[in-house]
Amino acid sequence: MSDLIIPFFEVQQTLQSILIQYGFSEDRAKLCAELFAKTDLDGVRSHGVNRFPLFLDFIQKGYVKPDNSPSLKSKTAMFERWDGNLGPGNLNAHFAMGRAIELSKEFGIGCVALAHTNHWMRGGNFGWQAVEAGCIGICFTNTKPNMPTWGGSEPILGNNPLVVAIPREGSPVVLDMAMSQFAYGQMTIYAQKGQELPYEGGFDENGNLTKDPTTILKNHLALPMGLWKGAGLSLILDLLASILSGGDSTHEIGKRGDEFGLSQVFLCFDPDKLELMDWMAEKTESVLENLKNSAVFESEVVRIPGEKVIEIRRSNLENGIPINEIIWKKLLKELGK
Amino acid sequence: MSDLIIPFFEVQQTLQSILIQYGFSEDRAKLCAELFAKTDLDGVRSHGVNRFPLFLDFIQKGYVKPDNSPSLKSKTAMFERWDGNLGPGNLNAHFAMGRAIELSKEFGIGCVALAHTNHWMRGGNFGWQAVEAGCIGICFTNTKPNMPTWGGSEPILGNNPLVVAIPREGSPVVLDMAMSQFAYGQMTIYAQKGQELPYEGGFDENGNLTKDPTTILKNHLALPMGLWKGAGLSLILDLLASILSGGDSTHEIGKRGDEFGLSQVFLCFDPDKLELMDWMAEKTESVLENLKNSAVFESEVVRIPGEKVIEIRRSNLENGIPINEIIWKKLLKELGK
Repeated sequence: MSDLIIPFFEVQQTLQSILIQYGFSEDRAKLCAELFAKTDLDGVRSHGVNRFPLFLDFIQKGYVKPDNSPSLKSKTAMFERWDGNLGPGNLNAHFAMGRAIELSKEFGIGCVALAHTNHWMRGGNFGWQAVEAGCIGICFTNTKPNMPTWGGSEPILGNNPLVVAIPREGSPVVLDMAMSQFAYGQMTIYAQKGQELPYEGGFDENGNLTKDPTTILKNHLALPMGLWKGAGLSLILDLLASILSGGDSTHEIGKRGDEFGLSQVFLCFDPDKLELMDWMAEKTESVLENLKNSAVFESEVVRIPGEKVIEIRRSNLENGIPINEIIWKKLLKELGK
Repeated sequence: MSDLIIPFFEVQQTLQSILIQYGFSEDRAKLCAELFAKTDLDGVRSHGVNRFPLFLDFIQKGYVKPDNSPSLKSKTAMFERWDGNLGPGNLNAHFAMGRAIELSKEFGIGCVALAHTNHWMRGGNFGWQAVEAGCIGICFTNTKPNMPTWGGSEPILGNNPLVVAIPREGSPVVLDMAMSQFAYGQMTIYAQKGQELPYEGGFDENGNLTKDPTTILKNHLALPMGLWKGAGLSLILDLLASILSGGDSTHEIGKRGDEFGLSQVFLCFDPDKLELMDWMAEKTESVLENLKNSAVFESEVVRIPGEKVIEIRRSNLENGIPINEIIWKKLLKELGK
């Protein structure tokens, strides 16, 4: 798998042109392409261009409807419930976080629950969206069943990613994590290299923990992070997402086979409106400085969630973004190149 | 350690009488004692009567001020910031969740951030408080530093318990979990029995994961649940709690040595006001039924967070509550018995 190095603008333009061919209006193609391209720009390669062919496939299958935007189902002051109408997941999520930001600017707190939407690709994008608007942002999504519950021998829970973002001058804190200890994509890479996982990442056919990615992939039994704790948190996020949105829960999504029609929640706090500005920046710096200065084991480094993004982004903007050559050539063919 | 079996009413009355001796007004003594007694009633022995002697010690040291109630610092519609004034942690938390419930009944969502409060003892109590009022409740607290960050060789993060509770006829779903894989109390019990932990629960002096509770206790290096993921979540909860409340973060609390003056957040959603009642019960049942009917490995059982509580509560109400004999006799001495 060799990489090409492509400028950000060219990645975005290329994806945009393809989306227009797939029936997107120019504005929507631009934003959708930008969200994909920004994902690679920030170094999150698992959810950017590498996913784009699957995204196109889902459009062709009719799971993702290019023209559909969310429609408002109910509103109670700072809380709004929207139907995603199976529109593109990243556009729907961007819209929903945008509404949560607006509501928080008006009321202090804003919450948007979104039903019948699609995979939001990189969840961290919407955390960044919140902090760029000066807000504390929290969002989570359910998924199809892809992880067993504690003691379970079949995938029944979603890995239900959770994003929490806290504004900060320079480098915000953006936690973006799924409820499985390792992503299936990561485990596939270890398996292809013939390597063990660095930590236990799932179960074998007898329910024993294992570091062998091939066994885990075969059984589709990824480990919930924190064992029973991550299983509990995954269940709770699915309940919250489906109850607040009125949309489908993980097991209902699972009945479809392919993963579409998800439920998501977007929650914003506006520190300005909530009168937290007197201490927010100072308190955040003090916590992070204390953490960065703490003692570590040999050859270890303390990392703050999201801290590598700014550096990777700067480098990729300057030098171009590494893009998988095979996928890129496949995408150029869509444009007859 | 043998147990006595004491009726709920007697446990509550005894604790109440002691609290009155320690300067509590009758009303506050009653509620504070009830929150302790309910904790044992529900089978959460680590945070009930077993903690009561330490609670009394903290009153005597002046960390916990029996008479102090929260005072309002700022209000933005559905968001209120209160100062706990170092009052008893369980009374303060009960008050704060009560306000969050009231705010959610008025606005749909209610949020209370509480600074300078004390250990809330069993966090699950406040999840139950929310669901008994028909609300979805979320709350979390920071703690003193008691867990390393990922790669870290000293306790620098709190185990920052998180509670999420979803109303349900009969047995609500109440997730109550700290960010460490095992509690120090649990690990102490394994160590006393000379047993290994069932899973890796912390680090040895070289930073390697270990199941040996004695080593972990000696190093004070409990494992963040989900490895780097729990470390990230702990950091984020501390930032949210201290920013939203304007109170102290884990590292500031750590400077005091003993654990007092914590920061907490209480968030409620009122499903009635938010117009979620048409599907909430049915959706919750469908998710839980699907989970309970899923395939498990031999001798495993699927558990729903909080499901054992109703059964334990019923049994303890009927038969009396198991209470540690040594601690009980110590408490009776406080009353000159």
